Amino acid sequence: MTKNKIKSSSYLFPRPVVLIGANINGKPNFEPLAYVSSVEDKPPLISIASYETHFTNIGIKENGTFSVNTPSEDIIAGTDYCGIVSGKEVDKSKVFDIFYGELKTAPMISKAPLNLECKVIKTLAIKDITGAEIGHELFIGEVVNAYAEQEYLSEGAPDISKINTFTYAMKQYWKVGKPLAKAWEVGKKLMTD
Amino acid sequence: MTKNKIKSSSYLFPRPVVLIGANINGKPNFEPLAYVSSVEDKPPLISIASYETHFTNIGIKENGTFSVNTPSEDIIAGTDYCGIVSGKEVDKSKVFDIFYGELKTAPMISKAPLNLECKVIKTLAIKDITGAEIGHELFIGEVVNAYAEQEYLSEGAPDISKINTFTYAMKQYWKVGKPLAKAWEVGKKLMTD
Repeated sequence: MTKNKIKSSSYLFPRPVVLIGANINGKPNFEPLAYVSSVEDKPPLISIASYETHFTNIGIKENGTFSVNTPSEDIIAGTDYCGIVSGKEVDKSKVFDIFYGELKTAPMISKAPLNLECKVIKTLAIKDITGAEIGHELFIGEVVNAYAEQEYLSEGAPDISKINTFTYAMKQYWKVGKPLAKAWEVGKKLMTD
Repeated sequence: MTKNKIKSSSYLFPRPVVLIGANINGKPNFEPLAYVSSVEDKPPLISIASYETHFTNIGIKENGTFSVNTPSEDIIAGTDYCGIVSGKEVDKSKVFDIFYGELKTAPMISKAPLNLECKVIKTLAIKDITGAEIGHELFIGEVVNAYAEQEYLSEGAPDISKINTFTYAMKQYWKVGKPLAKAWEVGKKLMTD
């Protein structure tokens, strides 16, 4: 078998799907995003990369806040809809029932099983490091608060087997499959004394 | 139903799992990582956040290169093993058969279905933005080359249904489930004229 050079791309399979919430001119707006990652534990930080022309970016920069909402299958159509239409043309403030937390300007989706309320602590325009004329903006947010209903928790923490969320790859959403093996355990068989 | 405040954390469900490869003193080393994300498309950029005490970080900073390897179930034990033992104590250079690309210093795993060869274009110590004494380092790498064998491709691009990779959540690895719906399609039913 031969390794082929294929088109260079930042492939990751599969990606988590979240809805980023922000207020623009005082009105909530949401965009689905898969360019997201944890970047720190103490304090808990999350990075999101959103294209600079997106409506959401205006609100994040206006308020210095955003939310990260993990969708369930129940709101998959609403999630996808928010990726089809732009807040520049369509008012997305009524797509979901929302609530606010202590930051006041990060709208969160009531029906999403998990909501993170985030305060921006660093903004990086990717074009400033690549020299490109346009590009994504990387926002690093501190998770100031996290919210979930009791039914989605096990021992106080969100339980993926209760959340019924989905992932993204190849222009499709995918179910999360079954547990396969325990981490920091399945590899022990390769240990030698 | 009531939204409870739960412990603040940068929850994302589920996370992709990759093996980050780097050379330290000329020897290949690998660490499994789930704190990864795409951050740009043109050029293709990927971010990885790795704790500053990790052995891998030394190699990334030494060479300004790293690799991102997507594992299949076939190498799940080796993937996990690399997360149990540190390269500071154990030589992990023989865990996998490896190859190098044009960057010469980013070791890639032959049995991993997908390999990204990356050149660091930006390094950010998270502690510099949080004021913490210790923390993760965020490396943003340009995907200079991507490699895959023909059997994992459909129309020249990696096909998740052929790769047989897995994800991470709650100290477990999980299978990728079945396709659920098409993106930019399932939301159309919410469109109004």
